[in-house]
Amino acid sequence: MSADWFRRRFLPRGPLPAPRPPRPRASPVPYRRPRFLRGSGSSSCTADASRRPDARPVRSPVRGRSLPWNAGYAEIINAEKSEFNEDQAACGKLCIRRCEFGIEEDQEWLTLCSEEFLTGHYWALFDGHGGPAAAILAANTLHSCLRRQLEAVVEGMVATQPPMHLSGRCICPSDPQFVEEKGIRTEDLVIGALESAFQECDEVIGRELEASGQVGGCTALVAVSLKGKLYVANAGDSRAILVRRDEVRPLSSEFTPETERQRIQQLAFIFPELLAGEFTRLEFPRRLKGDDLGQKVLFRDHHMSGWSYKCVEKSDLKYPLIHGQGRQARLLGTLAVSRGLGDHQLRVLDTNIQLKPFLLSVPQVTVLDVDQLEPQEEDVVVMATDGLWDVLSNEQVARLVRSFLPGNREDPHRFSELAKMLIRSTQGTDDSPIQDGQVSYDDVSVFVIPLHHQGQGHSSH
Amino acid sequence: MSADWFRRRFLPRGPLPAPRPPRPRASPVPYRRPRFLRGSGSSSCTADASRRPDARPVRSPVRGRSLPWNAGYAEIINAEKSEFNEDQAACGKLCIRRCEFGIEEDQEWLTLCSEEFLTGHYWALFDGHGGPAAAILAANTLHSCLRRQLEAVVEGMVATQPPMHLSGRCICPSDPQFVEEKGIRTEDLVIGALESAFQECDEVIGRELEASGQVGGCTALVAVSLKGKLYVANAGDSRAILVRRDEVRPLSSEFTPETERQRIQQLAFIFPELLAGEFTRLEFPRRLKGDDLGQKVLFRDHHMSGWSYKCVEKSDLKYPLIHGQGRQARLLGTLAVSRGLGDHQLRVLDTNIQLKPFLLSVPQVTVLDVDQLEPQEEDVVVMATDGLWDVLSNEQVARLVRSFLPGNREDPHRFSELAKMLIRSTQGTDDSPIQDGQVSYDDVSVFVIPLHHQGQGHSSH
Repeated sequence: MSADWFRRRFLPRGPLPAPRPPRPRASPVPYRRPRFLRGSGSSSCTADASRRPDARPVRSPVRGRSLPWNAGYAEIINAEKSEFNEDQAACGKLCIRRCEFGIEEDQEWLTLCSEEFLTGHYWALFDGHGGPAAAILAANTLHSCLRRQLEAVVEGMVATQPPMHLSGRCICPSDPQFVEEKGIRTEDLVIGALESAFQECDEVIGRELEASGQVGGCTALVAVSLKGKLYVANAGDSRAILVRRDEVRPLSSEFTPETERQRIQQLAFIFPELLAGEFTRLEFPRRLKGDDLGQKVLFRDHHMSGWSYKCVEKSDLKYPLIHGQGRQARLLGTLAVSRGLGDHQLRVLDTNIQLKPFLLSVPQVTVLDVDQLEPQEEDVVVMATDGLWDVLSNEQVARLVRSFLPGNREDPHRFSELAKMLIRSTQGTDDSPIQDGQVSYDDVSVFVIPLHHQGQGHSSH
Repeated sequence: MSADWFRRRFLPRGPLPAPRPPRPRASPVPYRRPRFLRGSGSSSCTADASRRPDARPVRSPVRGRSLPWNAGYAEIINAEKSEFNEDQAACGKLCIRRCEFGIEEDQEWLTLCSEEFLTGHYWALFDGHGGPAAAILAANTLHSCLRRQLEAVVEGMVATQPPMHLSGRCICPSDPQFVEEKGIRTEDLVIGALESAFQECDEVIGRELEASGQVGGCTALVAVSLKGKLYVANAGDSRAILVRRDEVRPLSSEFTPETERQRIQQLAFIFPELLAGEFTRLEFPRRLKGDDLGQKVLFRDHHMSGWSYKCVEKSDLKYPLIHGQGRQARLLGTLAVSRGLGDHQLRVLDTNIQLKPFLLSVPQVTVLDVDQLEPQEEDVVVMATDGLWDVLSNEQVARLVRSFLPGNREDPHRFSELAKMLIRSTQGTDDSPIQDGQVSYDDVSVFVIPLHHQGQGHSSH
């Protein structure tokens, strides 16, 4: 944001206007579970039937329905934390339209000669908060944004090296060399498209929520396969890992008020008005109180990775911008994540202080070269919302994967069975394979994506 | 910087004032070579004698003079790029005063009962630009800033765990638990002190240069040993690596307009006034020209790790905020580094556009646990300015270290001999051990710090 734009958007002059009252329209975003769960036991799509029974069922796609790459999926609703399951999921085939332009002399008219498709696949998890609407909108929308963004650069993607000019026309003879020197590869265009798609989707969600008078936000974790590579884009605290026989590799990192402390503190330093005099930007080991006044206590500010001591003043007693540790860490006492989609209207309870300026919708993207990996029979990517990772470590999940898959080679539905087993491992039930494990009371959603046989034949039309 | 402070400091309203003319005082910062080079051949300290002869000599401390930990040092002046050697170096013992306070009932008076010292060692390289003054000031000053910053927190450092309150007084019974939960360790206080010391030194340099009517800036790479650990703090493009028999480990990373692109572009996005309409914030594979207008070309902005295409407008033809690749990359067409000390008055040639807002003085700090490493006879840390690393890779330096040391065990001066040999390897001379090597025409300065026997007995008084 530019300072001027930022001030116009977030820092109105004069007394702050009251938050706009929700302006309900005829059709709020309807609650639903992912489409690919249709027909799976208790998987009716109406809100009423989705209310949990006493024993929470683990749900997965009905046998016979196959997801892209024969991926597995399972989910469980939280233990009465919210009426709805605020997690959402989506997956499908991505068909990216390629236009072939005419020969050189026709270029002025960009004659459309033929059309073919670059295909990929898409799996996404959205973990909602403040209501299910943002996650549902994201599940309905993000793949379309991504398709549009990829179509806008697809001519660049199908070339051996992205051309400096999308038209392929060379204006300087050394243009290819400039691109080469910058090290720009096809995968950078996909990364750029993912970054733009997340931002576009965030704008759509903002408009839709405002129009329907609804609120809320969600994290987004997306895996996209394209041309032999798997792109994992993450904004929030979900996680994807690669599990192989001898390797566990994180494919994402989490974005929380703790992991993004310096970015968030720095924004509050540049625009102190965002805290409206109600919060302190500084971090202390605990919230300070009157007895601490005048004492030198541990603190850190936006420019510090280390810690130092400062003499406590009265303004240091305010509520901290980022408070609490680990799972309990909150931004402005409100939000546990620092990236995601939505939350355009979110304010600190009983104040006019907005959360959105501190949130980023742009994801971090990791690229896995599946072709180069030469994946083996039981190599998988596990994607899950934080409910799983709060209870199971990467290594525990890897052990469960390795113990489950070899004995179930014949079951075509084995990756969903594995996803279900992972979820049951978080429920502290008698049949849980993890002894003395912790229990997750959160919504949990899991994709298991097998990599074997899938990296090949990537550019089918 | 806060937006208001920032505007007051960098964005004067109305027509921009002309740059303040230098206000010379009686004594500009005198040129000198590091003190520990005194008596070493051509090492006279006057400016005249420092002018290079036709064959540039490699200089190192005179035999018999030992540096902390018996470290080695060597330097060479550039090939007529500047009149002076703009690199500077410093090393020495750090004595940090510890005050022991009286027993509980006397605390109100903070009775000073005794004084003892926590000792460490310090090695620093500064690579100047725009004149030698900033690097000389940094070599004269930074260790004092660091001592002062460490003395301000030393009571916290000598405790098993840093206490929440510097006085050691416990205001909440669970204060130690809060500190524990945040994972705050002694080394975080040293990191905090290094971060503060760099900033304090930057302010001193700003004041001193203004008072003496001089200009310039420098990078800073500092290694500090304290309580069995080695802290490497870096702001700029110098580099430190650990070389062991079976391992080469980078102990720093470089800060250049390329590596800090997103931070720099984002600042220009928030405060577009900083570019005064003369530069474009966006990155393109090359500088655009009239023929590119209306074409879709590769670009990226501050929020992007990937690349995308945009339609070229007239404003995209401006000179880029960051231009060129690798060694040639420049910030505002002027500076090759994005962190360092000084440059308070630096402006883009023939304009009023300032560089300082884009520069950070805060270093990145890496911690090496020397005690835990159990260093062997030939384990060393090599610190050098960019002149060395432009020509030799980490692996080449490691090979040279491993080939040199075993045959020279008896020479007490062997680490300086190794530093000299490393420098000669950059000069393309007949006796260079690197065949077909590139040649460095830059100033080069090298410390070689042996780790064996040094991690032990760290807290002598």
